[in-house]
Amino acid sequence: MRHLLGIEGWRRDELEALLDKAQAHLPGKPDTTHILRGKVVANLFFEDSTRTRTSFHMAAKGLGASVMNWTQSGSSVSKGETLLDTARNIEATGPVAIVMRHKSSGAPHLVAKHVRCAVINAGDGTHEHPSQALLDAFTLRQRWGALDGRTVLIVGDLLHSRVARSNLLCLKALGARVVMCGPPTLIPPGLESLGAEVTHNLDAVLPQADAVMCLRLQLERQSENFLPSIREFSRLFGLNPAREERMKPEAVVMHPGPINRGVEISPAVADGPRSVILEQVSNGVAVRRAILEVCAS
Amino acid sequence: MRHLLGIEGWRRDELEALLDKAQAHLPGKPDTTHILRGKVVANLFFEDSTRTRTSFHMAAKGLGASVMNWTQSGSSVSKGETLLDTARNIEATGPVAIVMRHKSSGAPHLVAKHVRCAVINAGDGTHEHPSQALLDAFTLRQRWGALDGRTVLIVGDLLHSRVARSNLLCLKALGARVVMCGPPTLIPPGLESLGAEVTHNLDAVLPQADAVMCLRLQLERQSENFLPSIREFSRLFGLNPAREERMKPEAVVMHPGPINRGVEISPAVADGPRSVILEQVSNGVAVRRAILEVCAS
Amino acid sequence: MRHLLGIEGWRRDELEALLDKAQAHLPGKPDTTHILRGKVVANLFFEDSTRTRTSFHMAAKGLGASVMNWTQSGSSVSKGETLLDTARNIEATGPVAIVMRHKSSGAPHLVAKHVRCAVINAGDGTHEHPSQALLDAFTLRQRWGALDGRTVLIVGDLLHSRVARSNLLCLKALGARVVMCGPPTLIPPGLESLGAEVTHNLDAVLPQADAVMCLRLQLERQSENFLPSIREFSRLFGLNPAREERMKPEAVVMHPGPINRGVEISPAVADGPRSVILEQVSNGVAVRRAILEVCAS
Repeated sequence: MRHLLGIEGWRRDELEALLDKAQAHLPGKPDTTHILRGKVVANLFFEDSTRTRTSFHMAAKGLGASVMNWTQSGSSVSKGETLLDTARNIEATGPVAIVMRHKSSGAPHLVAKHVRCAVINAGDGTHEHPSQALLDAFTLRQRWGALDGRTVLIVGDLLHSRVARSNLLCLKALGARVVMCGPPTLIPPGLESLGAEVTHNLDAVLPQADAVMCLRLQLERQSENFLPSIREFSRLFGLNPAREERMKPEAVVMHPGPINRGVEISPAVADGPRSVILEQVSNGVAVRRAILEVCAS
Repeated sequence: MRHLLGIEGWRRDELEALLDKAQAHLPGKPDTTHILRGKVVANLFFEDSTRTRTSFHMAAKGLGASVMNWTQSGSSVSKGETLLDTARNIEATGPVAIVMRHKSSGAPHLVAKHVRCAVINAGDGTHEHPSQALLDAFTLRQRWGALDGRTVLIVGDLLHSRVARSNLLCLKALGARVVMCGPPTLIPPGLESLGAEVTHNLDAVLPQADAVMCLRLQLERQSENFLPSIREFSRLFGLNPAREERMKPEAVVMHPGPINRGVEISPAVADGPRSVILEQVSNGVAVRRAILEVCAS
Repeated sequence: MRHLLGIEGWRRDELEALLDKAQAHLPGKPDTTHILRGKVVANLFFEDSTRTRTSFHMAAKGLGASVMNWTQSGSSVSKGETLLDTARNIEATGPVAIVMRHKSSGAPHLVAKHVRCAVINAGDGTHEHPSQALLDAFTLRQRWGALDGRTVLIVGDLLHSRVARSNLLCLKALGARVVMCGPPTLIPPGLESLGAEVTHNLDAVLPQADAVMCLRLQLERQSENFLPSIREFSRLFGLNPAREERMKPEAVVMHPGPINRGVEISPAVADGPRSVILEQVSNGVAVRRAILEVCAS
């Protein structure tokens, strides 16, 4: 039993072993429903998510487990129960893992201290989203074999992005160079200390990238005096066809979804030949099966 | 792999082959969980529906598939993702079919052009609801053997009814005569060109019917200056015991549900000996198993 | 096939046989997925509940059944369908049991009169919540072997508590003495006629109890002129460490959850060595498996 609370705390060889395991869970591989047969995986989502929740649901089913869904509406959460009481109640029903999303950074770490089953962080505040980083790394390994010496450029709203933070940690651990680019108002402090190179000039760094990961501009989280405006953000940091032309010939385009078409990425780029966006989604199920296998079996 | 976007586009022999297949899925028949074992069916419902969604859910389970539920609340849909991006994301996770309901007519057709899995229309706007028409036809075939020469009378709010439209197409394809009856304000143009006979006089046509299908008066969709009033609608077009007496001795009463008791149908008729309303529900699971078998296996 | 509409109507030997069966469903016992394999259990919840709904869901899965969830939002219920029509529609799809929660006392009894499958009451208004009482009794039997001659003290908001009422009936049937304690404004009439001893003085009866069951103060149901205030309620009826010291050495503390920490029970007591609160949750799945086995197999 092991928690996946973040990429932080996992060594390179452990991350690679997990990604290696995910190979066995790609479509067309032998049945793996014996791995968690008769076991239960609990989904505990306090924030909106169909994409991640469903991906974990399918991953658990693919390992033979049953899935228990606890969602915010219609649950004891709305009756004022504390997070820990909810978690301990779920634990008492006997799941092998709790997959949880919460708006507060650190919530899964708190739960993990008080339950005996595995806790999988499916996104906590602006902190980490490790399964997303692992599926992104898996997708790049499919292309490149190894990430050593590759340059991954992460562009956009770095301030609100747990995806960016987990990717930075994961990509660095796997040997890649990580450049992060966005407007000054959307860059949190401390990225350099985690190994990132930070820039505000997309056009200057774009030709160096082997992969460009566009982040969703979280429109619902922008403050009123958001600078730049969405239009200006898109002009300065949006990945459009003109910019795509200046990328390396083999460089790929990524996005964790859901996409704001025409904001951080142009439709022609999202749907174009460089895009591996749907491969990311598809690989997500295999990687999450491997996560459950490693942590809960 | 085949889509079921509507009854339109399906030939009589194809419809009959599907209805024949449904026989094998009635309660008490041999286990059919091998048909889609290990496969995933995605339910993508943008509109309220427990009845249809649950029926497809049970149908998929009965074929051995797992079901992935995408619903509007709690999904990326609420983050402004486009319909096509949502559909392509679902497709990327590998389902054999997407069962979808959408408030816009034609939405499933748009999705079907962009995904490689089967798309099953579970209701699109006021356009089609083919699985309902097929289960209605199945229920009538159980009674009659064949529909040729039979008269089916469809009564009520034809304007807002995708059920009526799909039934018209299906019943005509299977050889029945279809008479449609309602107030002038609730009859859309073009029904005659699809083969219906249209009338406003229920009492005149009632004695000719072998089956009377009452439609739900969609109270929530009536405009403010709805003419006639609900009381008048009920008086002129409601199926009540007095009218039931003037039906053929063997004629049956149908309703797609949910029922407005005392509006389009009287409780005594809905619960009476002519009613096959619950048989329709029961047959729905078998017919939807056949739909998934034909389209997705 | 048998209904579980309440503890009322079940004899002592029947209750004990059901609790005996639950032993076979504890964690670590042999697989029981043959019991309802290929069957469907319908969950029909008109009121908020993750805890009970999920417990029944896991119980059904543990017996090999599929679960069909009907919830209030997104269902035909919101289209004005009557309870009986909804229930008959569910029945028509062929489940072996309907597990239902409803805000109206007696709703499951009404449904049971009109369907042929088993109806399991998962809470009706302020009337009964029999599966909770059974899991509480099971938890006490695990400790004591038998309940004969034991004193169970139920404390708090007795007025709004279906849990209290079902526990009173169940504990009395199994031979225990039941003392019920709360403020006069939160005690319904008629408890004595069901065999309870009623008091307003917690401190006087506390030393007699072998088990103290704290009830959730249903804050959302208190009227505006609630007497006493929450603070006063907590002072007079809350189980705190000072009171815990006056309990018998071996006496246990129970709570049906979700807990209002610091209102009806102090955190130190809820999390302390006397607490069997999480055992109650854990036993809930086993007891609900036994309920489904007895009623629906």
